[in-house]
Amino acid sequence: MAREEPADVVAEAVAAIGTADTAAAAAARDLQDRLTKPPGALGVLEEVSVQLAGLAGACPPPTPEPAAVAVFAADHGVHAQDVTPWPQEVTGQMVANVLAGGAAVNVFAAELGAEVRVTEIGLVRDVPAPELLARKVRAGTGDMTAGPAMTREEARRGVQVGIEVAYELVASGHRVLLTGDMGIANTTAAAALVAAFTGRGPAEVTGRGAGDDAAHARKVQAVLRALDRNRPDPADPLGALAAVGGLEHAGLAGLILGGAARRVPVVLDGVTAGAAALVAIALTPDAVIACLAGHRSTEPGHAAALADLRLRPLVDLELRLGEGTGALLALPVVRCAARTLHDMATFDSAGVTDKGGAYETVASPDRSGTGHR
Amino acid sequence: MAREEPADVVAEAVAAIGTADTAAAAAARDLQDRLTKPPGALGVLEEVSVQLAGLAGACPPPTPEPAAVAVFAADHGVHAQDVTPWPQEVTGQMVANVLAGGAAVNVFAAELGAEVRVTEIGLVRDVPAPELLARKVRAGTGDMTAGPAMTREEARRGVQVGIEVAYELVASGHRVLLTGDMGIANTTAAAALVAAFTGRGPAEVTGRGAGDDAAHARKVQAVLRALDRNRPDPADPLGALAAVGGLEHAGLAGLILGGAARRVPVVLDGVTAGAAALVAIALTPDAVIACLAGHRSTEPGHAAALADLRLRPLVDLELRLGEGTGALLALPVVRCAARTLHDMATFDSAGVTDKGGAYETVASPDRSGTGHR
Repeated sequence: MAREEPADVVAEAVAAIGTADTAAAAAARDLQDRLTKPPGALGVLEEVSVQLAGLAGACPPPTPEPAAVAVFAADHGVHAQDVTPWPQEVTGQMVANVLAGGAAVNVFAAELGAEVRVTEIGLVRDVPAPELLARKVRAGTGDMTAGPAMTREEARRGVQVGIEVAYELVASGHRVLLTGDMGIANTTAAAALVAAFTGRGPAEVTGRGAGDDAAHARKVQAVLRALDRNRPDPADPLGALAAVGGLEHAGLAGLILGGAARRVPVVLDGVTAGAAALVAIALTPDAVIACLAGHRSTEPGHAAALADLRLRPLVDLELRLGEGTGALLALPVVRCAARTLHDMATFDSAGVTDKGGAYETVASPDRSGTGHR
Repeated sequence: MAREEPADVVAEAVAAIGTADTAAAAAARDLQDRLTKPPGALGVLEEVSVQLAGLAGACPPPTPEPAAVAVFAADHGVHAQDVTPWPQEVTGQMVANVLAGGAAVNVFAAELGAEVRVTEIGLVRDVPAPELLARKVRAGTGDMTAGPAMTREEARRGVQVGIEVAYELVASGHRVLLTGDMGIANTTAAAALVAAFTGRGPAEVTGRGAGDDAAHARKVQAVLRALDRNRPDPADPLGALAAVGGLEHAGLAGLILGGAARRVPVVLDGVTAGAAALVAIALTPDAVIACLAGHRSTEPGHAAALADLRLRPLVDLELRLGEGTGALLALPVVRCAARTLHDMATFDSAGVTDKGGAYETVASPDRSGTGHR
C-alpha cells in the first residue's frame, strides 16, 4: 500500500526561484540618475538599490524591513579532530547566551532594529528553551574525516528546515533576512565546502576560525582528509553538502533559497553563509538575485566564496565572529540604498540645476516624471 | 583707549584638547577580551570601542547618541576656473534641497536617526531660511589661482564658527558629531589642501569630484597654479587654509577641534572632511583622538589624507557624494562598537566556557568581575 509522498519542499523552492525583473531594475537605474546627486555618486548603494528593485519586481522596491536574523545552531563531528580550542559544549552555551540576549548578535540586532530567531538544527545536547525553534535533523554531524558528515536525506531535510524558516519569517512580515550561525568547529566544515565548490586547495581556504596556529594546522589536515575520504562532487550539491557540510550550512542554504523564492533579500554573514550560498547557487544559480554579501570576514575561505559568487561585501572590518554580526552591520547600508529610491528628490522636483545648466522648471514636482537631460 | 580683545576661541579650543585616557582605553581592551566571543573577533569594532573609551575617559564610554550631521555650506572662487560642470548656484539650491529634506544626507539621517544641521559659512548668495544657521564669513572665497582664497583672519573666523557649532551641538545634548559639506568646486580646494599638508603632487591627489575628464584636467591645473601662486606652508595651518582652502574646510576643522575639546567623537565624511582634518591635526595632533574615518571615497586625495592621518575608514563603498553620507553609513558601526562594552555578556556572566575549558562557575554574574583565564 502506497504511503503518500511528502512534498519535496527543496525542489519546489528551487523551481519557484526566477530571474531578476529587468524592467524594474532598469527603472531603478534610471531613477538613480535623476536623483539630486551626480550620477553614480552613491557608488555601491546604487547597485544595491537596483538589485532590490529587480528582486522585488518594483521600483522603488519595498523598504527592507522589518529585519530578522535567522541563526542556525549545530554541532560538528569533526570537532573530534581537535580543530579548535573551544569545547563542543560551547555551542549550546552560546545558544543559551543568544537566547538570553548577551551575545554580540543580540547587541547589534537591538541597536539596528532586527529580530533574532534561533533554530536548533543539529545540537548534540538539547537546549531547553521555549523560544528556541527546535528543528533538530540529527544530534551533530558525523566526523567527516571518517565518512560523510550526514546522509543525503539529512542534508535535504536541513535545507528544507531553512526554507521553512524563511517562509515563516516572510509570512510573519519580515522583509529582509540575515544569516546567522552558531556551531563550534563550523569553520572547518565551511572550509571543506568552499574547497569542494570552488576547486581551491584546503590550505588556501582554511582559516584560523576561533583557534590558534596549531589548531589551524590540524584544521587544514582535517579538511584534506575529509575531501580525500568523501570526494564531494560540486555537480551534486546535496551530496557534497552531506559529505563535508554542517547542518547550519544546510539551514542557511535553505534560508537563501526560501528568501529568493519569496523575492525577499538575504544578507549574508561570514564564511558559514558564504559556504551555504555556494550550495544554494549550485542548486540554482538564480538564487543569487536575493543575495547581498553583508561583509568580508578574515577567513580566507570567505573571500574565495565571495569571489566565486561575484558578490561584493558591504562591510570589511576584519570581523571573524559569525552569529550574523557582519550581516547586521550591513543592514543600514541596504536600508539606505532602498530609501534613496523612495525619499530623495529629483533634479526636477527639487528645482536643482542639473550639470550643464540645462535645467528647466517643470510644473509638477512628480518624482516619477521623465528626466530633463 | 584699549578695546577689549575678544577671546581667541580657536586658541582656547586647541589648548583644551588633551590626550586619550590610557586607563579607560586599557579597561576597554581588557573588557573586550572577556566578552563572549573569541578575543579580537569583532575586528575594527574593538579598536573603535577602545578609542571611544579613551576619548571619554570612561569604560564603557557613553553611547554615541544622539547624533548630528553638521553640514557646512560655502562657495569657491576657483569655480571660475571651470573645474566642474556644475553651475555655482547649485550650492545654494542644494542647501535648499537639504533644508527641504530631499537630499541624500536627509534620507540617510532619517533612516539612521541623526539630526541634520546646516551652517551657511560662505555662500555667494544668501539662502533665506530660518532653519539655516547663518554664519557667513565671506560671500565665497576668492580664486586661489590668482591669490589667497581668503585672509588669515577669515580662515580663523571660519574655524571659530566650526568650534562654536560643535559646542552648541554638544550643549544641546548631541554625543556624536558627523561632518557634512556642500559647496560646488570644494573638491578642488580639498585637493590643494591635501597636496599642501601631505606633500603629494596635485596630479596624485586631485580627483574627478562631480566632473568629467576635461574638468579633471582643468582641476589639476588649477591646483598646481594655486600652490605655485600661494606656496602654502603646512607648518602654518591657518595660513595654508587661508591660501588654498574653503570656508567649509575651515568650519569642519573647527568642528573637529570643538568635538575633541568636548571629548565627543567626530565621524569624518569624505575628502572635504579629510582635508579639514589635516588642518585640525596640524593645529594640534591630539585632535586625532576624536576622529573616526567614516568612509573612504573614490577621491584620491581622500585616501592620501587618511593615510597621513593613519585613520582606517569604516565604510568603503565607492561613494563620492559628500554631504555627510559616508559618515552616516559608519554611524551604526560606531554605535555597535560602543554597545558591545555596555550590553554584551562576559564569559563569567553568561556561564560560557572559555577556550581551554578552564571555566569555573562564579556566583555573581557581574560583568565587571575579573576574567578567569
